[in-house]
Amino acid sequence: MQQLQNDRYLRALLRQPVDMTPVWMMRQAGRYLPEYKATRAEAGDFMSLCKNAELACEVTLQPLRRFELDAAILFSDILTIPDAMGLGLYFENGEGPKFERPLSSMSEVKQLPILDPEVELGYVMNAVRTIRKNLKGSVPLIGFSGSPWTLATYMVEGGSSKAFTKIKKMAFSDPATLHILLDKLADSVILYLNAQIAAGAQSVMVFDTWGGVLSPRDYKDFSLQYMHKIVDGLTRENDGRKVPVTLFTKNGGMWLEAIAATGCDAVGLDWTIDIADAKRRVGDKVALQGNMDPSMLYADAPRIEQEVQTILEGFGQGPGHVFNLGHGIHLDVPPENAKVFVDAVHKLSKPFHLKN
Amino acid sequence: MQQLQNDRYLRALLRQPVDMTPVWMMRQAGRYLPEYKATRAEAGDFMSLCKNAELACEVTLQPLRRFELDAAILFSDILTIPDAMGLGLYFENGEGPKFERPLSSMSEVKQLPILDPEVELGYVMNAVRTIRKNLKGSVPLIGFSGSPWTLATYMVEGGSSKAFTKIKKMAFSDPATLHILLDKLADSVILYLNAQIAAGAQSVMVFDTWGGVLSPRDYKDFSLQYMHKIVDGLTRENDGRKVPVTLFTKNGGMWLEAIAATGCDAVGLDWTIDIADAKRRVGDKVALQGNMDPSMLYADAPRIEQEVQTILEGFGQGPGHVFNLGHGIHLDVPPENAKVFVDAVHKLSKPFHLKN
Repeated sequence: MQQLQNDRYLRALLRQPVDMTPVWMMRQAGRYLPEYKATRAEAGDFMSLCKNAELACEVTLQPLRRFELDAAILFSDILTIPDAMGLGLYFENGEGPKFERPLSSMSEVKQLPILDPEVELGYVMNAVRTIRKNLKGSVPLIGFSGSPWTLATYMVEGGSSKAFTKIKKMAFSDPATLHILLDKLADSVILYLNAQIAAGAQSVMVFDTWGGVLSPRDYKDFSLQYMHKIVDGLTRENDGRKVPVTLFTKNGGMWLEAIAATGCDAVGLDWTIDIADAKRRVGDKVALQGNMDPSMLYADAPRIEQEVQTILEGFGQGPGHVFNLGHGIHLDVPPENAKVFVDAVHKLSKPFHLKN
Repeated sequence: MQQLQNDRYLRALLRQPVDMTPVWMMRQAGRYLPEYKATRAEAGDFMSLCKNAELACEVTLQPLRRFELDAAILFSDILTIPDAMGLGLYFENGEGPKFERPLSSMSEVKQLPILDPEVELGYVMNAVRTIRKNLKGSVPLIGFSGSPWTLATYMVEGGSSKAFTKIKKMAFSDPATLHILLDKLADSVILYLNAQIAAGAQSVMVFDTWGGVLSPRDYKDFSLQYMHKIVDGLTRENDGRKVPVTLFTKNGGMWLEAIAATGCDAVGLDWTIDIADAKRRVGDKVALQGNMDPSMLYADAPRIEQEVQTILEGFGQGPGHVFNLGHGIHLDVPPENAKVFVDAVHKLSKPFHLKN
């Protein structure tokens, strides 16, 4: 077991005592950083950057040089699995991700291959190994995947969606096909995340970006059930250390009890829920990650610090809180505001971790 | 007081006994109906249709000829107020509404006029009067407005938005300007809805489409506070009958207690909350409107009926439920599926209203 110089993030996820609240930011490696844009330009397009282990490592480390972040997160995309399954991921300028060959029938779903992550997604594992080596034990590395439901929305819609017409048509008129797809994706995510863990990821996170567009019944049936399967299938200990797993459903604030009951270690919160409420509801079962509105980083330093203080007070005393934004950092946020945020979490959280 | 042949909708909003659960659909007059498309083509563009009282009346009545709906809703747009304030509303093909002159400064906000609804929005009142006359007391007419926060998002962003960057920048770095705008909009909405009531609207609804993109603290500060002001300022009785008011915040399921505490008569629910939960939390204070996923109308008749039954069972025995979709009906839904839905609500709800 490699000694970590800073294991605050892992300890907080396991609800163990820390000296101050750990903090990282979703999409902390990204377009708000000029050095990211430079590396991206060097790589060419977005997927070329993901597939180049040295450059993916470089952009992963960039935000850690600027800010005192308590974790690094693998630079990659949530859609690597469907891309490797042969759907043909591409990005159009100014638009979200798209697939050349979206799915619409049972026969297409049945033909999807189950991947060997070290083969078809070997570039991700190379990036994990390269990043771990270059982190030199400074902070832990987070691996991640999209949730089966979220992956399926892109695979069936052919890209981003507003109303999720195609996948909901499938959910309500041909649920058998969708369940086969989701089950196959759950198996693939298990293999994928376990490969990331074997390659060196010290914690993993499942992003369910679109679970919140479902009714509570359909969320449990089409999204949570498969995240539960993933939690059950993950390697939870590696190299002598527990590997915490965090589930994040955007707009999932009403379903925290059900999410916590999967056996995950932590639940990610977007900013639409009061963290004090969330702690009262599930704080005895899981750690909580979140939850400042990313748009708060448009404000000035005193306002950012005030919001950090409000959220720290909401969570209150004791361990089990990883500070984060409620979603990814916006691309037009000034990097100095991100620094104000990160520093404020460390500075203002110390009183909440004093031993009695 | 004109006798209503069917007052189920008004009675349910006031939590009075009914023989079966009333039902209507958000955007029931709209593009999924071929007869709507024909009238729209006759009118020219969308706003010309809104501004022509005879044609607005025609499209309002079209769904009532097809389905046994328990209410009609004024055909109009939520953005009539900012348009009348001079921001220049227009629609681009395939995109949402846009404003030619969005707001960005305190001086622009201060210069916004307070409208006389019978003058600048006289076309809306003409439509209300024409529709009431043509309804001939069959079912009640619902008037509506956008909420101040929702109107402000369009006025500041200049149109639809994904991340609400501009208005959140204003909210977090210049809240004084935003509060002046919201207060002015609340005053305008009060005048506007009271004019609709005077013209014949028998119930009014405030649509807060974008309140759900805020944190709980910011929702109360920037959205709910101003809806509360509106509730306080509305004409609550007219022509010898109570005029119920319904507040609807999309993705507001976590804040039902706060919404119900405004003194509104009913709370609209989108489909992401379990109606049984909602009833347990606020059912002693308000009626509930909702909440089937609009995408369920892509399914076949048995599946639609099953979902209606599930939601009816969720609400359970007794009055206080207006059945609706959780948001507007999708434009590509087959009209016969809407009929299945409406008929299922009436047929399946009778057992829930039997006297003990």
